[in-house]
Amino acid sequence: MRSTTRGFKLYYNPDTAGLLRMDTNTNALGGNPAAERFLAGAKIDLGGYPNTYSDGLRDALADLYGLERGNFVAGSGSDEMLDVVFKTFTEWGDNCVVPVPSYVLYDYFVGMNGGKAIQVELTEDFQLDPDAMARRDAKVIIMPSPNNPTANSFRAKDIEEILSRFDGIVVVDEAYGEYAGCGFVERVEEFDNLVVLRTFSKAYSMAALRVGYAVANKGLAEVMNCVKIPYSLNALSEGAAIAAVGDQDFIKRSVAMVDEQRPRLRKGLEKLGFRTFPSDANFIMAECPADHADIVAGLRAEGILIRDFGSKRRTENCVRTTIGTAELNGRLLDALEKVLGDLGC
Amino acid sequence: MRSTTRGFKLYYNPDTAGLLRMDTNTNALGGNPAAERFLAGAKIDLGGYPNTYSDGLRDALADLYGLERGNFVAGSGSDEMLDVVFKTFTEWGDNCVVPVPSYVLYDYFVGMNGGKAIQVELTEDFQLDPDAMARRDAKVIIMPSPNNPTANSFRAKDIEEILSRFDGIVVVDEAYGEYAGCGFVERVEEFDNLVVLRTFSKAYSMAALRVGYAVANKGLAEVMNCVKIPYSLNALSEGAAIAAVGDQDFIKRSVAMVDEQRPRLRKGLEKLGFRTFPSDANFIMAECPADHADIVAGLRAEGILIRDFGSKRRTENCVRTTIGTAELNGRLLDALEKVLGDLGC
Repeated sequence: MRSTTRGFKLYYNPDTAGLLRMDTNTNALGGNPAAERFLAGAKIDLGGYPNTYSDGLRDALADLYGLERGNFVAGSGSDEMLDVVFKTFTEWGDNCVVPVPSYVLYDYFVGMNGGKAIQVELTEDFQLDPDAMARRDAKVIIMPSPNNPTANSFRAKDIEEILSRFDGIVVVDEAYGEYAGCGFVERVEEFDNLVVLRTFSKAYSMAALRVGYAVANKGLAEVMNCVKIPYSLNALSEGAAIAAVGDQDFIKRSVAMVDEQRPRLRKGLEKLGFRTFPSDANFIMAECPADHADIVAGLRAEGILIRDFGSKRRTENCVRTTIGTAELNGRLLDALEKVLGDLGC
Repeated sequence: MRSTTRGFKLYYNPDTAGLLRMDTNTNALGGNPAAERFLAGAKIDLGGYPNTYSDGLRDALADLYGLERGNFVAGSGSDEMLDVVFKTFTEWGDNCVVPVPSYVLYDYFVGMNGGKAIQVELTEDFQLDPDAMARRDAKVIIMPSPNNPTANSFRAKDIEEILSRFDGIVVVDEAYGEYAGCGFVERVEEFDNLVVLRTFSKAYSMAALRVGYAVANKGLAEVMNCVKIPYSLNALSEGAAIAAVGDQDFIKRSVAMVDEQRPRLRKGLEKLGFRTFPSDANFIMAECPADHADIVAGLRAEGILIRDFGSKRRTENCVRTTIGTAELNGRLLDALEKVLGDLGC
């Protein structure tokens, strides 16, 4: 095995039959309706190859953002885009700066590509430390904004400072960017070193179809397209994504639902003794009033999955839950109340 | 850009609107009917993530071959499997032995992962030279069988000799294995260093959906699963592939059609002055009776695409065409006759 992958384990793969999943931050409004309509009527030649570089989807995205096809790289989930970033911009042994706490899979993508992840602490309030990040000897700095699992956006001025001070590539992973309502996609031509990642798995509610994309200035996007695997995005997922881009009303409704439910869920959690952290996404991180593992196990017994970050540094005794509909959040809070009661809280 | 990817160009991406494609070796019987039926009735939650390691498809394949789920790695096309092979088993700068002529993308996958491709010549009759391959200092030997673009299978005893003499991983890419009717899938537990690749893009006629898999002993398959990107196979493609595995009758009909048409197309090509090479796949390589580029361009003007290998070493002045239905082969031969006539042959 490649030396940098020797510690790899199989990824989170819980048995979820019959459970309410509030552990993956997908869209609680259900599957994307425009994508469903497209798939119900799709007449695609299954035997033929997809368009090599997903030109149709890249054109739709260019229209959406006022950019050009050449600014986009499309593929099988933003996870493929992460892989392409490291394949394109790093050599063996190169360093990549990753904030802590942030997305658990960054270390995996760095190691898979023969690199080393340098962990740089976020500040006390989970914001970036631009100086500590920009002065590291590295080829890539990567960060999710809004951050996962903490849920807050990073300040635009901090990201701008990193972009201007750091010589390498700066990747801003906006998987939850639709919920934050702002981001760096439209600004890719301003910077020679910015790559923004987006996904159809969250607000677009198409996680089952695995679609993601990278946005960058045309020079960077072209070299990434040269490196990515041809045809990696299948034709049905591409067609569904084009349909979904055309239905921005669903995105607006999805974001509005989360904006409405976020303060209610937060208040409910705090009433039960949780300490919640600021959220610009469709999930909330909260510090538990009892042992995190007991709470997560108790909830599971009640038929609800949330994600446990309580054993990790900087998120000690914390859990993360998706913000659901009013009904789902009610079920979660009722179950939590019962679990905490059973635990004697 | 990563030093080993600097020469990368965008891949073959012809404008194919309205053209008959005999350049990609897909199944001329049309899209997979079981997959089409599955998709027409599919009720999948688009918002939720697929199974992390495609357990449903791996179970279906285990049943098909009399193996176990743990022998399989499934993903987005066998191209993803190629990437996973190099990510799992090679370090930066490692050598990989690739026969010449063979599949054009192997060099790309090796370079993308920081390795070096060592080209070893096939014999005069396009068979393996086991000694020349096995004694190279390399981590991986990779070969397609049936070979592409030459179309012949390699001899099992030569592959066995390489497997026993070579210390590293031996990858047998059986993209066209269904047409050859034999292969190494069922034998993966016999060897500690064998990885077999298969695809749903050829005989299964599902290229649009991007599904491929690797088969190996359980130890190798597990480390490959640890390295591959979680969820890389989308839920619709996985479901369609499971349905397609259940319809072996379509595969039999597809292979029988090619077996029937192959000698007819060969005879037609030879009558026009082409020299054809032995084929165990759904395509034929042929040396042209006039300049290859003129013939390919002439055919394109007649609305038919075939693939030009005439400028490459060992396949000088050769083209490759898919074996189609009787009707498509007739169209191809008629058009070729006209083109050759126009060229004064």
